[in-house]
Amino acid sequence: MVRERNPSRLFSKVTIVGVGLMGGSLGLAIKKRGLAKEVVGLVRRRQTLVRAKALGAIDAGTLSLPQAVRGAELVIVATPVNQLGNMLRDLAPHLPAGCLVTDVGSTKVRFLRDVEKMFYVPDLVTKTVPVKPTFTFVSSHPMAGSEKEGVEHARKDLYESSHCLLIRTKYTPADAIARLETFWRSVGCRLVSVVTPEEHDHWVAAVSHLPHALAACLVNVVQDLAQHDPRLVTAAGPGFRDTTRVAAGAPALWTEILLSNREEVCGMIQLLRQQLSRMETALQSNEPRRLSAQLEQASSFRQELEKKRRVRKVH
Amino acid sequence: MVRERNPSRLFSKVTIVGVGLMGGSLGLAIKKRGLAKEVVGLVRRRQTLVRAKALGAIDAGTLSLPQAVRGAELVIVATPVNQLGNMLRDLAPHLPAGCLVTDVGSTKVRFLRDVEKMFYVPDLVTKTVPVKPTFTFVSSHPMAGSEKEGVEHARKDLYESSHCLLIRTKYTPADAIARLETFWRSVGCRLVSVVTPEEHDHWVAAVSHLPHALAACLVNVVQDLAQHDPRLVTAAGPGFRDTTRVAAGAPALWTEILLSNREEVCGMIQLLRQQLSRMETALQSNEPRRLSAQLEQASSFRQELEKKRRVRKVH
Repeated sequence: MVRERNPSRLFSKVTIVGVGLMGGSLGLAIKKRGLAKEVVGLVRRRQTLVRAKALGAIDAGTLSLPQAVRGAELVIVATPVNQLGNMLRDLAPHLPAGCLVTDVGSTKVRFLRDVEKMFYVPDLVTKTVPVKPTFTFVSSHPMAGSEKEGVEHARKDLYESSHCLLIRTKYTPADAIARLETFWRSVGCRLVSVVTPEEHDHWVAAVSHLPHALAACLVNVVQDLAQHDPRLVTAAGPGFRDTTRVAAGAPALWTEILLSNREEVCGMIQLLRQQLSRMETALQSNEPRRLSAQLEQASSFRQELEKKRRVRKVH
Repeated sequence: MVRERNPSRLFSKVTIVGVGLMGGSLGLAIKKRGLAKEVVGLVRRRQTLVRAKALGAIDAGTLSLPQAVRGAELVIVATPVNQLGNMLRDLAPHLPAGCLVTDVGSTKVRFLRDVEKMFYVPDLVTKTVPVKPTFTFVSSHPMAGSEKEGVEHARKDLYESSHCLLIRTKYTPADAIARLETFWRSVGCRLVSVVTPEEHDHWVAAVSHLPHALAACLVNVVQDLAQHDPRLVTAAGPGFRDTTRVAAGAPALWTEILLSNREEVCGMIQLLRQQLSRMETALQSNEPRRLSAQLEQASSFRQELEKKRRVRKVH
């Protein structure tokens, strides 16, 4: 008997823990590209299982944790960021030896501190040394997403052309980084960078958390004004729509994300306030040159970013 | 001889003063929909004339002001907001009697105060009373645009599904409003509202100028951080891109827009600061409920807006 084997296959069984927008999109991408023989989803509700299977995001689903990870070569935890620690603790005793484990959480410092305590660092109070896990854990963060949530909004191209950050700590084996990089590139990521947890949280505070916070504040300003003059919102055009799109995102999810990175986010809000003050001064004192310098700086940097992105997309 | 007449034709000759993104897109829309027998562009540079003609945005172009408006039934002034007053003053002696004149400027209070002084209000110092113009002027602002500038980025669908604000002052004849409303609906606007100059400037400060100011500030925060850590920008995903798209807009244009509405813009920045403080407090004191309430307010309002827009687009 000749066994067929897909040449693009990287893993036999992949388990996705939490099949929402992120997990579901991963399932679709893995299946579309033939990266695994089997994609299994671990879900909390039977309804999600039925939907995810119907959409082709998973081959099979289960509500049983041990069953989900049995024989898995890659486990991707795609639950909300505040549940990652507990989920990993619950998964640990059931993970096969040699299994590669990752997550797609939005913040890393707090979570990876918990992971270290759980698996690597001796407890000074109880004097217990954790048993070194037989699986390998490397944290990931693909910079992709949507303001929508749930597997029904999953897209097989969600990760295409995106940038994936891999987090290196002193417990991260180099070969696991290399394997994960191959995986992320295989689902479409155009760029993979290796960073520290601190770098990660600093970066995402600037380019993801601050934009989200600002978009929400901007929407709330407009909503407050619209209570006195409801017609005001009808004037909102494509500029307002784009600037505030992310503010439609799931509030519960974003509450956890922002809180889990709150020192960095507060630092970013401070920097934003400084820029706002600069602009206010130029406006109040009616100084076209100062205002124009600030707008010019933003415009040329923003245009440059777009150019770089286009180049990245082409090559 | 039988004269053919396009049933959708509203005007014989339309003159567009300033054939850039806005003016050029109007030309394309007017020609595509057969709203005028002839579209003539008044430009400052021969190069623009050649480009605009090649792109089909105008039938003919000229650098001569009197020639441009000779016999025009509709004149649309689409120059930057700080040039509107002077342009209208220069145009006035050459405009045919009965001609309908409008502009697409981004702010109205200052500009319309100048217009009143020019054409309607006696000068208390010189005791001169302006000669009442034989043309009719009504100010417009279609809420459409792009971060790009120049006729080469003009699009025949730029105004489609957009909302056009018409500005009523005590000098605005009702029938001219009605004629302009027909015109804007004919180029694709889905909604036309009549507002006062003050309402207009308040509305656009909230939904257009504040978003632009914020986007620019956000880009500058990221740029400053990137000077210490250039890799940071590579983490910017679709959220950052959308939130900051407008910041790429022409700095000279936006300097004038923001300065011409500076009291309102400063007021909006103040309101934004209040929202930011609310968020900072929730983050610093680690209060998920307060933060979540703020994000929930933004999320549901933003989703509602999107729903309303979809409904408007369908009907």
